[in-house]
Amino acid sequence: MNTYPECLSCLLKQTIQTVKFAKAKKVTQKKIIKEIEKKFLPFVNLKLSPPEISRNMHIKIKELLKNDDPYKNVKTKYNKIALSLYPSLKSKIKKSNNKFLTAVKIAIAGNVIDFGVQLAFDIKKDVDDILNKKFAIFDFEKFKNKLKKVKDILYLADNTGEIIFDKIFIEYLIKTYKSNIIYAVKEKPILNDATIKDAKWAEIDKFAQIMSCGADSPGTVLKYCNKEFLKIFKNSKLIISKGQGNFEALDRIKKPIFFLFKIKCDLVANYLKLPIGSIILKSNL
Amino acid sequence: MNTYPECLSCLLKQTIQTVKFAKAKKVTQKKIIKEIEKKFLPFVNLKLSPPEISRNMHIKIKELLKNDDPYKNVKTKYNKIALSLYPSLKSKIKKSNNKFLTAVKIAIAGNVIDFGVQLAFDIKKDVDDILNKKFAIFDFEKFKNKLKKVKDILYLADNTGEIIFDKIFIEYLIKTYKSNIIYAVKEKPILNDATIKDAKWAEIDKFAQIMSCGADSPGTVLKYCNKEFLKIFKNSKLIISKGQGNFEALDRIKKPIFFLFKIKCDLVANYLKLPIGSIILKSNL
Repeated sequence: MNTYPECLSCLLKQTIQTVKFAKAKKVTQKKIIKEIEKKFLPFVNLKLSPPEISRNMHIKIKELLKNDDPYKNVKTKYNKIALSLYPSLKSKIKKSNNKFLTAVKIAIAGNVIDFGVQLAFDIKKDVDDILNKKFAIFDFEKFKNKLKKVKDILYLADNTGEIIFDKIFIEYLIKTYKSNIIYAVKEKPILNDATIKDAKWAEIDKFAQIMSCGADSPGTVLKYCNKEFLKIFKNSKLIISKGQGNFEALDRIKKPIFFLFKIKCDLVANYLKLPIGSIILKSNL
Repeated sequence: MNTYPECLSCLLKQTIQTVKFAKAKKVTQKKIIKEIEKKFLPFVNLKLSPPEISRNMHIKIKELLKNDDPYKNVKTKYNKIALSLYPSLKSKIKKSNNKFLTAVKIAIAGNVIDFGVQLAFDIKKDVDDILNKKFAIFDFEKFKNKLKKVKDILYLADNTGEIIFDKIFIEYLIKTYKSNIIYAVKEKPILNDATIKDAKWAEIDKFAQIMSCGADSPGTVLKYCNKEFLKIFKNSKLIISKGQGNFEALDRIKKPIFFLFKIKCDLVANYLKLPIGSIILKSNL
């Protein structure tokens, strides 16, 4: 996806949020915000995708903070909150009349946990809202048919917290479709995105093969991915992509990708001509 | 109200929106956005209130644009849309079982028309949402009692479009409480705020005395108001204040102000410990 001038204000919002989450001293916070305003934003190349620009900005912020994981505490907190919801989410599938639909919705519901764009939320309420919500784009039959035919799935993870929701969906896919899943996470901390450490903590390795995509961008920007991942990506017959960041990074790639996410900003809303907050299951082919 | 670092990203959002609404050439848009990033935002004094900072920024933007009313077309458009809703809004009060409540809610519903913060909206839908919504702060009895006792009201206007909704509320107040109303608007164009020209166009002078507060800030920042207005403000026994900007500018002033607005940003939401989108009828005393 293209980057729009409006993304600049969102990048500044991310900066402010990041220095706060890092609990830097007030004077350091101010210094870093000014530095980004003066020396990063005016020079942004809008031809790059939003996750790529965001990556470059966060490399700078992390350097200035002298902290390679400013979201560390927040990530731990939301991993734990998500884990505490695990039993009730599992039982929602068990009790559901349409188990597959509920499983897909739980995977999307996990996407409400995202500090990149939204600040205020209430996870439990948001999860229930999504379970009661209709999809705005819903390539459901296509997705089901694909799952019946293709057993090897590349699953692009998104955020911490959300990974527990992914785990539930993955367990369902394995049980129902006998899928073999590669679960790809980020190489280094970026915003609250999940890394190998998080995926292992969530014990996703009990069900899927965990790997790093090699990138440290909030969204799988292929030019930063490692060779091993790119080979798997290239050969994949079915890719499940979680979150708006992965959509922004990959929507122009002609591959059998199913994007699962909630629309979190006006620009993506305008791009898809749908209201903000819409939930999406979109086939890219 | 205090300004928070997060307001900086909102100010940048306003800048981007303003140069777009002004239909400046792309190259001019980029130049102005860079100028604000480099030379305004890093030097913002967060001890000033948000409307005061916004005023100072927009003076700079208007200079750079060589355009003293970048929202002119947008204001005309939304004045007209609001006017087209006038008959149906009047009949909503007529048909209502609680006419006063409906009249107050219509006044707040007009506050959905605000380009300062929100971009995407659907006026009709938003109006109906607000008519069906419960107030988060609701000093209703206090307000009614005050209206019974105090006939002279200073009414602080907010945006174009919204002024048509105000007119309906004002007509109701005059009919029901025999109120005498001074309707105070902004001195010069700022964002989509109403000026004397707009108030006259809406024919509010048929029901109320129109005056300029003297300020060109998005919110009645007293230090920029004229003497005539300040005298009236000082002596007022009842002030109706429309919109979040006026709340940000005046919430610390110990005067008999009733704030009528919808919460439009996370910071005001956090400040009042209420969700974004809440509707408020709040007595300041």
